[in-house]
Amino acid sequence: MANFDFPDWSGAHLQAVERALEQWVPALAPAGLGDAMRYAVLGGGKRLRPLLALAACESLKGHSQAALRAACSVELIHAYSLVHDDMPCMDNDVLRRGKPTVHVKYGQATALLAGDALQALAFELLTPQEGSVPEAMQAKLCALLARAAGEAGMAGGQAIDLASVGRALDEAQLKKMHELKTGALLQASVMMGAACGSATAQQTQALLTYGRAIGLAFQVVDDILDVTADSATLGKTAGKDAEANKPTYVSILGMQRSQDYAQQLYAQATEALDASTLADTAALRALADTVVQRVY
Amino acid sequence: MANFDFPDWSGAHLQAVERALEQWVPALAPAGLGDAMRYAVLGGGKRLRPLLALAACESLKGHSQAALRAACSVELIHAYSLVHDDMPCMDNDVLRRGKPTVHVKYGQATALLAGDALQALAFELLTPQEGSVPEAMQAKLCALLARAAGEAGMAGGQAIDLASVGRALDEAQLKKMHELKTGALLQASVMMGAACGSATAQQTQALLTYGRAIGLAFQVVDDILDVTADSATLGKTAGKDAEANKPTYVSILGMQRSQDYAQQLYAQATEALDASTLADTAALRALADTVVQRVY
Repeated sequence: MANFDFPDWSGAHLQAVERALEQWVPALAPAGLGDAMRYAVLGGGKRLRPLLALAACESLKGHSQAALRAACSVELIHAYSLVHDDMPCMDNDVLRRGKPTVHVKYGQATALLAGDALQALAFELLTPQEGSVPEAMQAKLCALLARAAGEAGMAGGQAIDLASVGRALDEAQLKKMHELKTGALLQASVMMGAACGSATAQQTQALLTYGRAIGLAFQVVDDILDVTADSATLGKTAGKDAEANKPTYVSILGMQRSQDYAQQLYAQATEALDASTLADTAALRALADTVVQRVY
Repeated sequence: MANFDFPDWSGAHLQAVERALEQWVPALAPAGLGDAMRYAVLGGGKRLRPLLALAACESLKGHSQAALRAACSVELIHAYSLVHDDMPCMDNDVLRRGKPTVHVKYGQATALLAGDALQALAFELLTPQEGSVPEAMQAKLCALLARAAGEAGMAGGQAIDLASVGRALDEAQLKKMHELKTGALLQASVMMGAACGSATAQQTQALLTYGRAIGLAFQVVDDILDVTADSATLGKTAGKDAEANKPTYVSILGMQRSQDYAQQLYAQATEALDASTLADTAALRALADTVVQRVY
């Protein structure tokens, strides 16, 4: 553990993820659909979710090919959600990762379809037909991803988000929204990585606690950055939440308490790893660091 | 077979599907999302895809609980595609099954999310965690559904459709579009039903041929009805394709040849069943009849 080098680890794993996405997101989909799908997915993004999945799998010395598929599948769900979220009927955002959003570049209809097709592709990746991933593992991965993406997860959180614009939420309501909107998929990334290995009940619980804390910390930090960072650094429009009168951790708790809360969640995540019998938690710890320390 | 009563069979199976959808499409999804999802799915629709799945399973005396899940999952994918397809950036339709479309009733943002959540829910239904469906079967069902819904299936077909408005397609291009846009999910309905049983290679081939022919026949008849039926009968806006200058079988082949083609496809479907060793094909035959004889 002492000699764990996170830049090395993340560099190698990011390269594997980029190569896999490059291969698996089809260039040849009909009528420009493939172009829009690839534009939405390739060449941008922190790939936090894939790295969480890979790190969780490694903490259990699990099935690395399955984990790479799981890693890419959560990234496809994340990418599709951004495409749809940026559309005029939702956030109406024109800039994402420093580039025009998908609907600006390809039109709304193609953006809508590209998002839809990316969601389906996520489940395709999880169900390879050439025997590389055991079928029981495929089923478990699909189960986790579907629940994290759907009405009891990301889509449900987005619905709460929509309904909350301009309304006063208390901290509990805000937490519930973020646990669904961003937390569910971040936690699923961890648990899908775990599903590629054999976790004891205690290990599963540790990873659940870690994933939940990281998922929430990510959003708290996101809200902080929306205030403190500029658009060029973020690669998307800063100050957007405040402008849209969206409730955020900063608007409810204030800046100092939001920063404290992020640190508490970080402590929860790392303490869960400390108390666990997981084989190798160095990458998970480093990812917790990057979530809380990130500047964009 | 002589005493097969299709109205009885379809009545009982439709009731099972409606009950299952009523139970499985959540009322309690956050912030009105559940209402929009249920509005999109419940109380309307011919349920052709679910009936195909159930009939295919029964032709192999397969796992009926798995087939009910498969049946509902394909209907959720179909329902989500209609919600998104009706949106202003796509077909901009305000009437569906005789009712206001989802975006008219709930707003575009909720319609977008409801469609997204319905796609995820389809994969949730296929992956129950209480042991009712073998995991290998779950994986196979997810694999079939994902491929039928995505860029090489329904979403890809819709992209071709989008790109084809106002352009001259030849018959081969039109066929390709429809094989993806509507054919893939109809065929998947059959093959997912089959995946709930144990088919021989010969039986699988017969069901593939049946499903492909039925899928294409459905679209040919749809194009015929767009010309011959009125909006009240269809429950959606008639004459829309011609008005939008969309290529259809009728516009390319003419009415008589389109009707002949539908009959040829019907014959292909039933001959595939005749030549098969499937245990009980009465329901599949009756469904082929309804696809070709339907008036709405």
